[in-house]
Amino acid sequence: MRMVDVIRKKRAGDELTAEEIRFVVSGVVTGTIPDYQTSAWAMAVCFTGMTDRETAELTLAMARSGDVVDLSAIRGVKVDKHSTGGVGDKTTLILAPLVAACGVPVAKMSGRGLGHTGGTIDKLESIPDFRTELARDEFFAQVNDIGVAVIGQSGNIAPADKKLYALRDVTGTVESIPLIASSVMSKKIAAGADAILLDVKFGSGAFMKTAAEAIELAQAMVAIGTEVGRTTVAAITDMDQPLGNLIGNALEVREAIDILRGEGPADLRELCLALGGHMLVLGGQAADEDEARGKLLAALESGAALAKLGAMIAAQGGDPAVARQPELLPQAKERLPVPAAADGYVHGIDAEAIGLAAMRVGAGRAAKDDAIDYAVGVELIAKRGDRVRAGDTLAYLHARENDEAACAAAQIVRAYELGAAAPAAAPLIYAVVSKDGVRQ
Amino acid sequence: MRMVDVIRKKRAGDELTAEEIRFVVSGVVTGTIPDYQTSAWAMAVCFTGMTDRETAELTLAMARSGDVVDLSAIRGVKVDKHSTGGVGDKTTLILAPLVAACGVPVAKMSGRGLGHTGGTIDKLESIPDFRTELARDEFFAQVNDIGVAVIGQSGNIAPADKKLYALRDVTGTVESIPLIASSVMSKKIAAGADAILLDVKFGSGAFMKTAAEAIELAQAMVAIGTEVGRTTVAAITDMDQPLGNLIGNALEVREAIDILRGEGPADLRELCLALGGHMLVLGGQAADEDEARGKLLAALESGAALAKLGAMIAAQGGDPAVARQPELLPQAKERLPVPAAADGYVHGIDAEAIGLAAMRVGAGRAAKDDAIDYAVGVELIAKRGDRVRAGDTLAYLHARENDEAACAAAQIVRAYELGAAAPAAAPLIYAVVSKDGVRQ
Repeated sequence: MRMVDVIRKKRAGDELTAEEIRFVVSGVVTGTIPDYQTSAWAMAVCFTGMTDRETAELTLAMARSGDVVDLSAIRGVKVDKHSTGGVGDKTTLILAPLVAACGVPVAKMSGRGLGHTGGTIDKLESIPDFRTELARDEFFAQVNDIGVAVIGQSGNIAPADKKLYALRDVTGTVESIPLIASSVMSKKIAAGADAILLDVKFGSGAFMKTAAEAIELAQAMVAIGTEVGRTTVAAITDMDQPLGNLIGNALEVREAIDILRGEGPADLRELCLALGGHMLVLGGQAADEDEARGKLLAALESGAALAKLGAMIAAQGGDPAVARQPELLPQAKERLPVPAAADGYVHGIDAEAIGLAAMRVGAGRAAKDDAIDYAVGVELIAKRGDRVRAGDTLAYLHARENDEAACAAAQIVRAYELGAAAPAAAPLIYAVVSKDGVRQ
Repeated sequence: MRMVDVIRKKRAGDELTAEEIRFVVSGVVTGTIPDYQTSAWAMAVCFTGMTDRETAELTLAMARSGDVVDLSAIRGVKVDKHSTGGVGDKTTLILAPLVAACGVPVAKMSGRGLGHTGGTIDKLESIPDFRTELARDEFFAQVNDIGVAVIGQSGNIAPADKKLYALRDVTGTVESIPLIASSVMSKKIAAGADAILLDVKFGSGAFMKTAAEAIELAQAMVAIGTEVGRTTVAAITDMDQPLGNLIGNALEVREAIDILRGEGPADLRELCLALGGHMLVLGGQAADEDEARGKLLAALESGAALAKLGAMIAAQGGDPAVARQPELLPQAKERLPVPAAADGYVHGIDAEAIGLAAMRVGAGRAAKDDAIDYAVGVELIAKRGDRVRAGDTLAYLHARENDEAACAAAQIVRAYELGAAAPAAAPLIYAVVSKDGVRQ
């Protein structure tokens, strides 16, 4: 088989065989197919697309290109959750202890952040002494013991995806529904969960700019899950502003604790109850979303969810007192007000710009080996629908006052989209996509 | 400027600026743009195309990426001719002395063959002692002296095109009108002629499968020529069968001599009169095609054209007696008949298959450094419109009888497309494209 023929076939819009797709993936991993052929193939896919069958084959081949985690040593139905990137998205920090407190085992492997979106592992490492590297046996034992563990992605998960994604990133071939869908799903499938809940974001700060695109991506991922026997459900959620009020590593842990205490911002709480509800149903711990919601609310009110976070922190070497005293987390020396430059109603807050502002003051990495300042970040005061007057505090920057902070403050002001009239209400969850279809 | 942004812009179908196109070409030549980005960009061009302005910019940037030949030391209007590949296409061997005999100076740089199409230089080298490498001064002096010289492409002509073409060849990005047009025209412009005559082939054996595609390609090339101030005319010619009867290096020289003697097959003679006519008009040696035809016929009848070939052979170190005694050329030991397997009318002869059969017995190169057997090749007896009966000789294979020859003979039989009824007559020249439009 010759790669040039496979490229030409894809360019012509024909369906590749399973053998041809495996040839591509294996060639990418072993390096027998040069990058210049792979990128030409990826560009052809961007234009001609892939059928569901091709996308599933690509996903499976990439999932099998490295380690495939066997979670069978853990009792129960393992449900994994994935979000397609989001600034201020601390849902994993909340959902892991919350659904574990409701009986769904959570054996979660997460990534570090790069660019303007923070990684769950970086956030957890803002808890002093918290260990994110556990041996496989220790990881399984902890989930069987207390029901939850969140660790860094170790080993060699979907190396074909890793190589292909790095190449797509520099060749203008990122935006492609089948390529994005297979990238996400290959890692989830290799990570071994029985069921997968996806949080697919849309809006100015997300990959998918419109709800329609997000639904198309969700449908592609649900189709893959169905094809390979992993029940997959996707929530389509609005990202017209960052999720919750706090952005930054320790700040996001603090807000997660607020939610687990029954406090915190309403948008974040609602999203967690909705996503957690799907996880309980997928994990067989509730018959429907209503029953699930009741169980989740009970776990929040009884303190069981917060206690589960404390148990997880303790099991992974951190100080469990953090769960009740978040002030033990790293805190920035200063809290600098960011005033509004004009009057108006907040119509949206560009999440990417807020993420970049947080990164500018040290909350994120520009390059892979950059150090992170866990204490810094952004605290949003005004959110969508709020009315502000010039001079009102839009947000606080948790950072040392210097040139970078001044620049970040200006970025934050610009990130606010103000309008003369109040914006129309938009539901946080726009739709739910499952193998039964789209429910709006 | 970042290549990934240029790729994304092209992927979106937007017009690149002259600066962006020069950035791509310079990055390809210097290697600062990696091949995997270049190939992704080329694939995006295949899908979104290029405007006339972009194509002209790309052509000029590629033409200027290496040596630009200055032919001003040669007197008169220099007219270059280019054919988009053709099996059995020995028109350069005929036209160079023919139009030179009519007063148009021919300073022609030609290539070697690779794959199933032979190169003019390989054909000329079948003449014993013929030199295809001349120093620049010697080359100019010969054209000023006897009016004609045909040499191998020397120096560093359009290296950007060379690199880009090699990459396109292995990444499924060859078929693209703007990329093909700019590739051809960049070399012609760098080669320095004042006017350019293109022979754009269509048919099963050509790049362009239909007349409409060939016209589109011709229009793109004429637009480039017009944009950069080189008068360009394109003849759209049918390639439903190889041109003439003989395919192979020395065999094609022999057939060229036949035409210059006023003999030889009618299709080849007609095409040479038509193309030569355009060259005379472009070169200012005839007011119109009718006057040009008269001059060409006179040069054939008087023996002036054949004498010009003899003079060129003598000037380049070969034995000029070859022009009058073609039996001095290398000849294969055997002439093996290839019998028809069925009855019918010849509707077409797959030129690519015939080229591959000739290559199989040694007439062409599979790799760049392969040796060529000048003597071998194919002699077609039955051509389009002829009626054959099973057992009739379709062709002769000029080659030693062995397994490869048997295999080549089978290829030749399969290359013949036979029909029950006589095929409709098809004109050899389907249309002529110039800046004034398409004339059919």
